[in-house]
Amino acid sequence: MALAPLVADLQTPCLVVDRDVLEANLVAMAARARNHGVALRPHAKTHKCLEIARRQLELGAVGLTVATVGEAEVFADGGFTDLFIAYPVWAAGLRGSRLCALAERVALGVGADSAEAVELLARALAGTEAKVVVEVDSGHHRTGVAPERAGEVAAAARRCGLRVTGVFTFPGHSYGPGRRNEAALDEARALQEADAALRRVEVGAGLRSGGSTPTAALVDEDALNEMRPGVYVFNDAQQVELGAAEWEDVALTAAATVVSRHGRDLVVDAGSKVLGADRPAWATGAGRLPDHPDARVEALSEHHATVTFAEDSSLPELGSIVRVAPNHVCAAVNLADAVIVTAGGSVVDQWQVAARGRNG
Amino acid sequence: MALAPLVADLQTPCLVVDRDVLEANLVAMAARARNHGVALRPHAKTHKCLEIARRQLELGAVGLTVATVGEAEVFADGGFTDLFIAYPVWAAGLRGSRLCALAERVALGVGADSAEAVELLARALAGTEAKVVVEVDSGHHRTGVAPERAGEVAAAARRCGLRVTGVFTFPGHSYGPGRRNEAALDEARALQEADAALRRVEVGAGLRSGGSTPTAALVDEDALNEMRPGVYVFNDAQQVELGAAEWEDVALTAAATVVSRHGRDLVVDAGSKVLGADRPAWATGAGRLPDHPDARVEALSEHHATVTFAEDSSLPELGSIVRVAPNHVCAAVNLADAVIVTAGGSVVDQWQVAARGRNG
Repeated sequence: MALAPLVADLQTPCLVVDRDVLEANLVAMAARARNHGVALRPHAKTHKCLEIARRQLELGAVGLTVATVGEAEVFADGGFTDLFIAYPVWAAGLRGSRLCALAERVALGVGADSAEAVELLARALAGTEAKVVVEVDSGHHRTGVAPERAGEVAAAARRCGLRVTGVFTFPGHSYGPGRRNEAALDEARALQEADAALRRVEVGAGLRSGGSTPTAALVDEDALNEMRPGVYVFNDAQQVELGAAEWEDVALTAAATVVSRHGRDLVVDAGSKVLGADRPAWATGAGRLPDHPDARVEALSEHHATVTFAEDSSLPELGSIVRVAPNHVCAAVNLADAVIVTAGGSVVDQWQVAARGRNG
Repeated sequence: MALAPLVADLQTPCLVVDRDVLEANLVAMAARARNHGVALRPHAKTHKCLEIARRQLELGAVGLTVATVGEAEVFADGGFTDLFIAYPVWAAGLRGSRLCALAERVALGVGADSAEAVELLARALAGTEAKVVVEVDSGHHRTGVAPERAGEVAAAARRCGLRVTGVFTFPGHSYGPGRRNEAALDEARALQEADAALRRVEVGAGLRSGGSTPTAALVDEDALNEMRPGVYVFNDAQQVELGAAEWEDVALTAAATVVSRHGRDLVVDAGSKVLGADRPAWATGAGRLPDHPDARVEALSEHHATVTFAEDSSLPELGSIVRVAPNHVCAAVNLADAVIVTAGGSVVDQWQVAARGRNG
């Protein structure tokens, strides 16, 4: 039997998953959902890997959340039978036909936030068992109707002959320092208000689906009966800087080689085409080095990350491999065709990012 | 013969290239280089497409620039025979072997900015015709040695038995409002100083390679004898906001569907997984809509761009398709497996992004 290659021999830049940390993250979120009596429908947009999705279901997830019709197709092809597209899908033309084909082979839920979108969904999904879930804005102000108006969309769906199961929201404003508690309260209130709005028009089967990784620790089982966190499988520099994860919870990093050095600035070969360019105003930089917590990724270009080390820290040598945690792991994974899986410092597997680039 | 599908029937989100605008951009840059008597070695990291690279050579480019060994392999496989890796490649282990294999089948240039990197290159490239080009920092402060120290790296390369052809720089600080003239002057001065440093140690064959798209219009043929612009093939929102291009020069946009609408905020389905998340502090947003120049992309998440329209502008309807110019087109192209090619509003071709994700 060939010896497993060591992580130190990797061709950088590449994304490396620590299998044990991943497993611990999967187990912990499954336990959290179970302990709260809340269904877990993890968002597969983060990992896009069939192997990880299978493990999520083994650990008790009720199904998967996806962001696009294309992602749903990949996971349906992979044998998954219960999928929710948490997006206000515009089901015109070919997209409508693709949605219909999906609904004929899996239990399918689709988001909607307007009467116009619902009309198209009704045409596309006529004769199928697909369900509509009304998207509600809980404070992120992106998509979704105001909670008190959820009944209008639900009633429109019923008029078109669609089955409505309930409401969902994404409290994306939890992605700000010190905003997690407020966002979790907003999320709970919005779901309860929207649920009441559906009851007033006598539509919906009571689904109240929420959840982001930052608010997952604050889940309120009186308000939510389903949660859809995504990032928790890997975590990232953002989650650590937001206080939603510790460095030991970060399961995916980019392996990068130090290629240039000028004073206390080192350049490594993982740039924005590996890490993604997400850099919220509150972030300390364009990623973090878990093994060098005082270092800062001051600048990022396509193939270079410029990392500044503190005065009193020891500098990695030219040619050494360092680990870089991306700010936003979903963006990083979507840049890679595959991730390298390691355990105990050895490469043990490689997983295809099966739904990479399936944005439509 | 089947009618070419109309752009209005595209499955959004997707990247759409206007073939005529692309051709005009290719012709204009080729003419600029020819008129100045400067060699054009365009950077293929922007388009990563064999079809575009072939056209660049037909129009007189002397070869291609690439950023990584992986990109070089793709273009070598595609039949290109003169490649320069404009990066301080760390040629250890397997990467050294790959570099050697490349040098055995194409005319290969490789960047270096340290004696340590040069030693590894010498070991990897022994017995090949590969050349080293010394990278110089002209003010961007990323990789590259100070111009006056270029002779040290060149002398180290010669001691190891490597052939040195000259110096190169990337004036990346041209990517700031009002900084183009200053960056072009810095670039010219740095290349001349570095060239003089090489002459003092009697190394190098006089190559002085520079160039970015913002500084291409200011090329100084006394200082440079080769230019390596990349973005000019497509242009993007950054180039327009920097004043280096007009909207009619933008050859690539994302086609996106309006999926949600709240007041004057519209959400379209091209997010950071399509456009990339590059957002320099001076940019007006996370991309631009060329057909709605007053609109601003205020927020971007993975599958949503939130676009705010001015009070007096007419709003695109729900379900309509709009064009979004990414801030940084290189990042957007690297997210797509293929680009749709159009002419006169019809789809005429599809090109694979052959070197997508080849970051190492």
